[in-house]
Amino acid sequence: MTGINRKFELAVRPLGMPKRSDWNYKEEPAREPNQGELLVKILYISLDPAMRGWMNEGKSYVPPVPIGEVMRALALGRVISSKNLEFAVGDSVYGRPGVQTLATSDGNGLSKVDPNGSPLPTYLGTLGMPGMTAYFGLLDIGQPKAGETVVVSGAAGAVGTVVGQIAKIKGCRTVGIAGGAEKGRFIVDELGFDAAIDYKSEDLRRALQTHCPNGVDVYFDNVGGDILNTVLTQLARGARIVICGAISQYNNTTPIKGPSNYLSLLVNRASMKGMVVFDYASRYPEAARELADWIAGGKLKTREDIVEGFETFPETLLRLFTGANTGKLILKVADA
Amino acid sequence: MTGINRKFELAVRPLGMPKRSDWNYKEEPAREPNQGELLVKILYISLDPAMRGWMNEGKSYVPPVPIGEVMRALALGRVISSKNLEFAVGDSVYGRPGVQTLATSDGNGLSKVDPNGSPLPTYLGTLGMPGMTAYFGLLDIGQPKAGETVVVSGAAGAVGTVVGQIAKIKGCRTVGIAGGAEKGRFIVDELGFDAAIDYKSEDLRRALQTHCPNGVDVYFDNVGGDILNTVLTQLARGARIVICGAISQYNNTTPIKGPSNYLSLLVNRASMKGMVVFDYASRYPEAARELADWIAGGKLKTREDIVEGFETFPETLLRLFTGANTGKLILKVADA
Repeated sequence: MTGINRKFELAVRPLGMPKRSDWNYKEEPAREPNQGELLVKILYISLDPAMRGWMNEGKSYVPPVPIGEVMRALALGRVISSKNLEFAVGDSVYGRPGVQTLATSDGNGLSKVDPNGSPLPTYLGTLGMPGMTAYFGLLDIGQPKAGETVVVSGAAGAVGTVVGQIAKIKGCRTVGIAGGAEKGRFIVDELGFDAAIDYKSEDLRRALQTHCPNGVDVYFDNVGGDILNTVLTQLARGARIVICGAISQYNNTTPIKGPSNYLSLLVNRASMKGMVVFDYASRYPEAARELADWIAGGKLKTREDIVEGFETFPETLLRLFTGANTGKLILKVADA
Repeated sequence: MTGINRKFELAVRPLGMPKRSDWNYKEEPAREPNQGELLVKILYISLDPAMRGWMNEGKSYVPPVPIGEVMRALALGRVISSKNLEFAVGDSVYGRPGVQTLATSDGNGLSKVDPNGSPLPTYLGTLGMPGMTAYFGLLDIGQPKAGETVVVSGAAGAVGTVVGQIAKIKGCRTVGIAGGAEKGRFIVDELGFDAAIDYKSEDLRRALQTHCPNGVDVYFDNVGGDILNTVLTQLARGARIVICGAISQYNNTTPIKGPSNYLSLLVNRASMKGMVVFDYASRYPEAARELADWIAGGKLKTREDIVEGFETFPETLLRLFTGANTGKLILKVADA
């Protein structure tokens, strides 16, 4: 008896914010592992802004999730049955099993994590895809130099919190853009950002002028839209913009807003470059080591926003797009 | 007696296309050179898209032309009187004397050119600012590799003609976007581009798919607007976009159009970078030597569109924005 697998399949391609009716919730017996396979009990599912893009039709950096299939998601779990020599019952594993509670796998794409090294949720956050995104996006594309000014949007999110803290470690003036006073206090008081801008209540352009008197040298963009467009007006000469995401635009039902101030790139000899973290896969171990050292040394703080209850998936996912989460949003499915 | 200087001063900051009433035409005696000064008879005035930007208020890479002052322009002339030891009567000189027929100068910013080296107008085109812009924009920012596909807009213009020919010299597949069948024939039949796309009569996206089957590796953008936005949909992985100008937007009376497809930079790990040719001033001689060698070797053809008559300046300038010119637009003021 393998137990009952609960899962969310993509039922239709959402228009705008995904609704519960865009999903099919199903319960069915998990498939018994064949020779070479193993069964994973999912403990934590990673909820990431990129998931919204994977739900759309059309060419992107990964194919869309097919209609009728389990929603793609990164997750952490524990092996509860194994006919695969590389995995033993009790192993903690990380991979992309999707939004389900029991996953039968041939082990491809699964990797073991050390549950004594860090708390498990950290492997989905600062030591997982968001941490890698922050690390390579900021350091490889943004190339911040000590004394420069780094601005990051979505600053209280999974990627933004890490970007800002790495920028501080590298000796930069660090300004975070986030929605609401509470997030601002968090990134300044707890994470050590030099300043926070509440885009919901402040005039962003004026606030940037105040907090970035020499202009913006590196802008790490997680949000797109009006915020990107306004930051473009405050670039320093030779500025680098890292295009990591555009969460403000993912649920648009009208055409996406292009940055009408893009000619600031010309005036300021600046660049705007896109990045996809998967390209850095061969260098993840190097980044994970350095991030873990910073965590151990107290220079880098991790923060997860853990919501319990597999059945809440459709609503919990939306916290990313309403700005409800602070830190890495994780759906807790079961106790370890 | 120095003679009568004719000049166009900027009277008001234009809204949209500059009208004749945006200029003050004046005739007054040229100022006698003092000790250390010289008097230049202007022969050819360079008409460049960037001039439209210089007429606007606001921060850019150079200050705007002040109202009531002679319009800024590059030009070529002949020294007709000199109290400056570095210049002799008869010297051909290049500089930024502005839109006037006689310029008294202290010699700052003037350089001598060799009238036997190349025809004088070439020093305003392929061996002047447009040529330098093409050379450094394509090679330094675009970094084309042999076998890659290079697309340039404004392909029949002063910069575009040089960009496309250098791309061919570097072994790239070269596709030019220009308005009208005649320009298309010119860049393919006379300049050796692999293909031309007439954006006025063709579906640009489909034409790019036809002529760039492996996507666009380098896009040299002179025009902005819808063309930039459409090219963004056809990028190859790792593509480089050179933002050189946005001639389609310079006379806008409504807000500029941002490239709504900019997230293609993310999907394709592509970059978009602005350039201002003045940054490369120290390397102009190196570029001029190489360009002159290519011209001498028959690999690089020059083309000027020379309009006679100083008094036509307000209308001739508009040829840049209506797409009337092919090659470098030059206003001929006097015979050598």
